[in-house]
Amino acid sequence: MNIGFIGLGHMGAPMALNLLKAGHQVYVYDLVESAVQMLEASGAIRAASPAKVASSEIDMLITMLPAAAHVKQVYLGEEGVLAAVGKHVLLIDSSTIDPQTARDVAAQATAHGNAMLDAPVSGGTGGAQAGTLTFMVGGEKNVFDKALPVLETMGKNIVYCGGTGNGQVAKVANNMLLGISMIGAAEAMNLGVSLGMDPKILAGIINTSSGRCWSTEVYNPYPGVVETAPASKGYAGGFGADLMLKDLGLATEAAKAAKVPVVLGAAAQQLYQTFSAQGNGQLDFSAIIKLFSAK
Amino acid sequence: MNIGFIGLGHMGAPMALNLLKAGHQVYVYDLVESAVQMLEASGAIRAASPAKVASSEIDMLITMLPAAAHVKQVYLGEEGVLAAVGKHVLLIDSSTIDPQTARDVAAQATAHGNAMLDAPVSGGTGGAQAGTLTFMVGGEKNVFDKALPVLETMGKNIVYCGGTGNGQVAKVANNMLLGISMIGAAEAMNLGVSLGMDPKILAGIINTSSGRCWSTEVYNPYPGVVETAPASKGYAGGFGADLMLKDLGLATEAAKAAKVPVVLGAAAQQLYQTFSAQGNGQLDFSAIIKLFSAK
Amino acid sequence: MNIGFIGLGHMGAPMALNLLKAGHQVYVYDLVESAVQMLEASGAIRAASPAKVASSEIDMLITMLPAAAHVKQVYLGEEGVLAAVGKHVLLIDSSTIDPQTARDVAAQATAHGNAMLDAPVSGGTGGAQAGTLTFMVGGEKNVFDKALPVLETMGKNIVYCGGTGNGQVAKVANNMLLGISMIGAAEAMNLGVSLGMDPKILAGIINTSSGRCWSTEVYNPYPGVVETAPASKGYAGGFGADLMLKDLGLATEAAKAAKVPVVLGAAAQQLYQTFSAQGNGQLDFSAIIKLFSAK
Amino acid sequence: MNIGFIGLGHMGAPMALNLLKAGHQVYVYDLVESAVQMLEASGAIRAASPAKVASSEIDMLITMLPAAAHVKQVYLGEEGVLAAVGKHVLLIDSSTIDPQTARDVAAQATAHGNAMLDAPVSGGTGGAQAGTLTFMVGGEKNVFDKALPVLETMGKNIVYCGGTGNGQVAKVANNMLLGISMIGAAEAMNLGVSLGMDPKILAGIINTSSGRCWSTEVYNPYPGVVETAPASKGYAGGFGADLMLKDLGLATEAAKAAKVPVVLGAAAQQLYQTFSAQGNGQLDFSAIIKLFSAK
Repeated sequence: MNIGFIGLGHMGAPMALNLLKAGHQVYVYDLVESAVQMLEASGAIRAASPAKVASSEIDMLITMLPAAAHVKQVYLGEEGVLAAVGKHVLLIDSSTIDPQTARDVAAQATAHGNAMLDAPVSGGTGGAQAGTLTFMVGGEKNVFDKALPVLETMGKNIVYCGGTGNGQVAKVANNMLLGISMIGAAEAMNLGVSLGMDPKILAGIINTSSGRCWSTEVYNPYPGVVETAPASKGYAGGFGADLMLKDLGLATEAAKAAKVPVVLGAAAQQLYQTFSAQGNGQLDFSAIIKLFSAK
Repeated sequence: MNIGFIGLGHMGAPMALNLLKAGHQVYVYDLVESAVQMLEASGAIRAASPAKVASSEIDMLITMLPAAAHVKQVYLGEEGVLAAVGKHVLLIDSSTIDPQTARDVAAQATAHGNAMLDAPVSGGTGGAQAGTLTFMVGGEKNVFDKALPVLETMGKNIVYCGGTGNGQVAKVANNMLLGISMIGAAEAMNLGVSLGMDPKILAGIINTSSGRCWSTEVYNPYPGVVETAPASKGYAGGFGADLMLKDLGLATEAAKAAKVPVVLGAAAQQLYQTFSAQGNGQLDFSAIIKLFSAK
Repeated sequence: MNIGFIGLGHMGAPMALNLLKAGHQVYVYDLVESAVQMLEASGAIRAASPAKVASSEIDMLITMLPAAAHVKQVYLGEEGVLAAVGKHVLLIDSSTIDPQTARDVAAQATAHGNAMLDAPVSGGTGGAQAGTLTFMVGGEKNVFDKALPVLETMGKNIVYCGGTGNGQVAKVANNMLLGISMIGAAEAMNLGVSLGMDPKILAGIINTSSGRCWSTEVYNPYPGVVETAPASKGYAGGFGADLMLKDLGLATEAAKAAKVPVVLGAAAQQLYQTFSAQGNGQLDFSAIIKLFSAK
Repeated sequence: MNIGFIGLGHMGAPMALNLLKAGHQVYVYDLVESAVQMLEASGAIRAASPAKVASSEIDMLITMLPAAAHVKQVYLGEEGVLAAVGKHVLLIDSSTIDPQTARDVAAQATAHGNAMLDAPVSGGTGGAQAGTLTFMVGGEKNVFDKALPVLETMGKNIVYCGGTGNGQVAKVANNMLLGISMIGAAEAMNLGVSLGMDPKILAGIINTSSGRCWSTEVYNPYPGVVETAPASKGYAGGFGADLMLKDLGLATEAAKAAKVPVVLGAAAQQLYQTFSAQGNGQLDFSAIIKLFSAK
């Protein structure tokens, strides 16, 4: 299949590489010349603008961009995708953005005659390289079915979430809960250890009780509890605190638009903002446990 | 074995019944006459005061009381346990109280010559009746080993948590995290559904992703997602909001004593207090999701 | 002077009337026909679009619009102000919007050759009618000096806040603190009265102590403490909870853009959102005290 | 008049000195020998225990102690005041403690035949030395009238708050609001300055607007805004963050007992706990603004 790919950053580049490995012809664009060259060296064909990607001989176009503003620019701008793309091209945006923008852009794509999916991912750069990402996908079911084989070359868990924008809704809801439960896990571990418990014993009890969550089982924020977790490796790598902060910002923004309270979600955002303002935004997000004690 | 049992409320009565069923001789005391009569009818022997229970021919004494003040009164008061008990009697307090009081009372028991365990439970009245409670036990390991066979007649998951007070620490840490993650689950479900997602699909995605927790998987607060959860039965039964409020109060009190921040823990306590002040303290604690919308 | 006025809502209409009373010629536009007719009946001249107002024989143009999206549309849209206005016309936006949009629009006005001020107000519809509004004004000082005589016909407290956008910054910072201190006042009054104090005595003590604030002195949320406050009149009139919610949304949005934590500001937003979601958004914002007890 | 005084710390010592200066005979007790010697050198008479102070030839007895546990010990202990004091002696506790303990101790004093007032102070060590403290007094009005002349030798603002315990209620409610509004002021100043405003101009606008409070006017947390405030002197001296933390702990404890939500009060407590856990508890409480940025 011929596929366009716009946005070759830490996530987009390995995703596009996996498309090439699967035997697809891939037309690429990015503002960063070195990123384009790297893909070219692997067999991709460069295009000079989003519009040029869109007007290539492609069946599908995938975008992976940092924020809503870029998505609007790339799809709706003067040199953008919709200005140039054929109606038969299936559009997939894998950026993590707010559901409203996802729906607005999809509505314009639909008006233009194109089918479009929102398909944000989780799994990080490791998952992007290994082709084991989770895709949360919103849009028409029959469009999802067409996209599925291609998404499966980049991920291993492809989840259909319902209508347009629901991929973004699922991601924002899941990650808000993740941010809350990670801080809760940090507070509970910190409290228990301060009161004299061994951290591994405490984690073991929580993990067989009603407090258990992914943040205590898989990614425990207390050093030494889970050997493979960032907490046991100096909080390096993983999912950065500033990325969690971005997702919590999307969650509170979506909640404001929906007129829905997210009291702990907003508190989590502010605690990550405090942690980041103190200079720790590059650490893994489980390092939030360090907010609660002297450095 | 001969066992004393003080505190025959919703939890204590079925626990004492399970001891009787297992063939133990049980000496009981409670302020409520009808509770004593019920146990007597099942074969227990009544005693006229905590001291009378303590001075009976017993090998072990178990207490199940509402709060720290009762525990101090029953063990340390003039007509209390320590004033009358023999040094060979193993003392077990299964009340949920703050770790500091547990340690203070145990220290006085030790000074008096008695081994003592703190062994708060989880599992609710259903678990008490079925004999499937979880016991979180603090104290000397060899004392724990002696108590284990008796605890196993009342529960199926008996966890050793380390030194004195650690049973209470484990419970308070677990339940604080539970309170936080339940509110987080409520906010995430409410947000996602408000933005247009089907609640079952949303829960399914979270439960295979990083936001998953006991509160989304087993006890989802959104009606209809988990058929066996209180949310699907009008929020009746289960673990009352006022009981969660009590446990969150113990958590913030313990954190204050330990000089440890619990920002989301305290926020959760205040949200449950708000929910209770609005008249909903008797509903199951997952009903907190109702705080965020018009009744 | 000839003045254009776009946005004739609850605030804009009485402001424009005060300009007429002061002897100015006023060209008006609003989407709502009845609002335009009311102004026409008072001597204003109607225009068919923002662009038509802008191309009238005017020296100054004032806008009073609900939100940032309207401001962008009115100034930057195809039939908007900048497309039609002469370079000599002084532009003043009195809408309450986020500082970034205010700065973006002002930058485009400057690029077009027009001086522009952001000048949000406080004082409510009562102040708008009485001509006693407070204007918080951002922009060049010499432009402020030119606008001052006109603003003084609509307000009595015209404050220069520094460069472009600073009027919005001042308003958003002040109102965030107001939202926080109102909830703080509600909690303190509710706590003290619940513990047995007379509300007037408590307010009297706070008002001569370090807890004193505008929310306890002038606008006390406890009924009967300040006779003229909405709390003593069933929480009718005044500044609606949903308007406070809007301003807190602007504050947290501006804080996100500035990467600055506002922990209590965000908590205040969520409490007002909860209060609004429970159906109370139309009450005066001091009614937030009702969130903390049964209705 | 002959007056007993127990508790000669940073607050108690200068208060007792002011009693001596006013010509009263003062019998003193403290665990710290050097404190007793200092008072003795100024003319006080030492007593060997609280009971010895109580059994001296006194008309009134004043206590100034760190926390509720000390108050209970000094009044109700075996060598305590009530075990030795004559019924004619007027008892005044100026410690800052929870209202419930104040009421419990006063009830026992009353049962013993003694009139008792709770009379916590504000004004800090400076006010104690200068004799300009504020006393918030709970108890019978006629008892208050008798105590007034003596309190006026130590303070200049003596406020009657109603029945027993209300002095503590007033202080806890006021200081909770103070803790909230100080953080609110810190967030608002930090936000406004980050968005480009001059801190003095911003404070000036807030102080003439609805956001004004003691924390912005008298004690502004931003350096350089109020020359006499701790913020302009490196956050030294003043009212320490750990003292504010203690008072917020009393507030949330009292709220728990009263079953009243204090959402922002609890958040303020946790933020001060976080600030203290990061090693800043000795700084003035307005230094909380430093929590929100890199050191």
